Amino acid sequence: MPELRHDPIQKRWVIIATERGRRPNDYPRPEQEIPRAFCPFCEGNEGKTPPEIRAIRRDGSAPNSPGWKVRVVPNKFPALRIEGNLDRRGFGIFDRMNGVGAHEVIIETPRHDLGMADMPVEDLAGVIWMYRERLADLLRDFRFKYVLIFKNHGAAAGASLAHPHTQLIATPVTPLTLSEELISARDHYRYKERCIFCDVIEQELELGSRIVLANETFVAIAPYASRFPFELLLAPRAHHHSFAEIGDGMIHDLALMLKELLFRIKKCLNDPPYNFLIHTIPNVRTPPKRAGYWDTITVDFHWHIEIMPRLTSVAGFEWGTGFYINPTSPEEAAKYLREVEL
Amino acid sequence: MPELRHDPIQKRWVIIATERGRRPNDYPRPEQEIPRAFCPFCEGNEGKTPPEIRAIRRDGSAPNSPGWKVRVVPNKFPALRIEGNLDRRGFGIFDRMNGVGAHEVIIETPRHDLGMADMPVEDLAGVIWMYRERLADLLRDFRFKYVLIFKNHGAAAGASLAHPHTQLIATPVTPLTLSEELISARDHYRYKERCIFCDVIEQELELGSRIVLANETFVAIAPYASRFPFELLLAPRAHHHSFAEIGDGMIHDLALMLKELLFRIKKCLNDPPYNFLIHTIPNVRTPPKRAGYWDTITVDFHWHIEIMPRLTSVAGFEWGTGFYINPTSPEEAAKYLREVEL
Repeated sequence: MPELRHDPIQKRWVIIATERGRRPNDYPRPEQEIPRAFCPFCEGNEGKTPPEIRAIRRDGSAPNSPGWKVRVVPNKFPALRIEGNLDRRGFGIFDRMNGVGAHEVIIETPRHDLGMADMPVEDLAGVIWMYRERLADLLRDFRFKYVLIFKNHGAAAGASLAHPHTQLIATPVTPLTLSEELISARDHYRYKERCIFCDVIEQELELGSRIVLANETFVAIAPYASRFPFELLLAPRAHHHSFAEIGDGMIHDLALMLKELLFRIKKCLNDPPYNFLIHTIPNVRTPPKRAGYWDTITVDFHWHIEIMPRLTSVAGFEWGTGFYINPTSPEEAAKYLREVEL
Repeated sequence: MPELRHDPIQKRWVIIATERGRRPNDYPRPEQEIPRAFCPFCEGNEGKTPPEIRAIRRDGSAPNSPGWKVRVVPNKFPALRIEGNLDRRGFGIFDRMNGVGAHEVIIETPRHDLGMADMPVEDLAGVIWMYRERLADLLRDFRFKYVLIFKNHGAAAGASLAHPHTQLIATPVTPLTLSEELISARDHYRYKERCIFCDVIEQELELGSRIVLANETFVAIAPYASRFPFELLLAPRAHHHSFAEIGDGMIHDLALMLKELLFRIKKCLNDPPYNFLIHTIPNVRTPPKRAGYWDTITVDFHWHIEIMPRLTSVAGFEWGTGFYINPTSPEEAAKYLREVEL
């Protein structure tokens, strides 16, 4: 019998279609590949990207030249533009705003073929350190309400370049999915005076069957109501509401955890396309005169990373309902991932 | 400058990235094709599907034999099962329910290669008539809170068989996307004492730039905050809350409109993969003892069909935020579709 499960945070129902019970090798590899071409992200090609915003350079080399370890550049085809003031207005029944925001690319390594799963831990810590730096910097701009850090790996996950990179988009509004999570967290906190994420993590740690990995600082869970097969939630075990405020020790622990998780996914599922994204609090530094709805009620949030291998396609039913059909139970997914030999 | 637009019904923000301004031919055709194989939906192969639930047969032929025009069968690999009672229970912080529901396939024609865009209008009217019949029948089952009718056309839209067919899934809960629309409609009605869909349709008809097609009964709009390029909203011009209650005259007008829209999409975008889905009110026939939240407040809803050509891929940003980036403005999309020569 299939089972319906409800996610108390994103408020979605998911059908766990256990009878279809698919194992890791039952998911066909997508045929679509990123075409091989000149790579503007490789060391030596710095002139082919817009001028760099920031880089980690150990040898004191000049900006926009070789010698970097992590390099941040504006997206050449940005979805939003950094210039201009917010201009929010009505249009009859609709609302519009000019497309002010930021769209950056964090090039994770000078090496074209060195993915996060295989990178030395200290290099991955450098990438995460750069996430925090760019996030903290952009949050100083009061026009931006939210900054999403996300990674598309593989063509089927939306990547157009194979060279390992992460993207960052700062938006002048709080996106719907975040509002939904913030409302759930606030409602739960008002009712229970506890964080909903802390409660979920505690229940999962007690039970154990959906835990993939845990160290002292972080835990990785196959969520109870996983929308996608082998979806993972990676979160700090203690309550932390802002990714912009993580310390250097936490960055190291996160790098250890993220590398191992991505390695297990790569090995278990034959290097699948995947997305990951960081959910943190909206920009609460907005000055009082311009304070938005979320500014006072976000300490009840708990930052986390969602990792989504792209193994199934999303069709009419999912678009029409916000309901998902998942052919691998999270308990099975966690088990397969735990059993990967390192 | 890109523009941000807000959908007042689904409460999503969309980035209309006008500078990327893509024309119909700028969208690459997906390479993925449905493999050619034995087709269980073709006339003569009735024994290869589960026994039929209902059919339109003009010649008095026997069930599960040739001679049908439209044929409804259970899905061979159903996401939900028709047998069993609802068993809703908690699991610590989570909610679960057994997977009771219905999953049917409406085979639109005995002909393997006759899509809706090319079918005679009276045949398409027969398909829509069958939608209404199956919907009305399933709504008599109080276990089902919602019935979604949807179509996946082409591999990239999630279809695994090429033979023209529509699916129907009855769920024991009201899905999130519907709740969102119902809340918007209710809030607007409380505030304005008008239907939010009627207001949107009126504003669009006055302005005209996003209207693709209109007849006396229906209107097709490229929505102001379209998530996807060439996305369309097809709705009755007058206020109707339930698809299960449409009359035969309306079915004919809808068939005319749907055929022409799908033909324009096919010609304009080179037969793209697409999804369409019907949004109607949840099951309000539930007896009072088991009345759900929506049962008394759904006459302010307005049924409609969403049509979504699948031209772009959905990546990390969209999954992470519920925010969409659309490279073709709806004004341009409407113009291209209006200009198609029939």
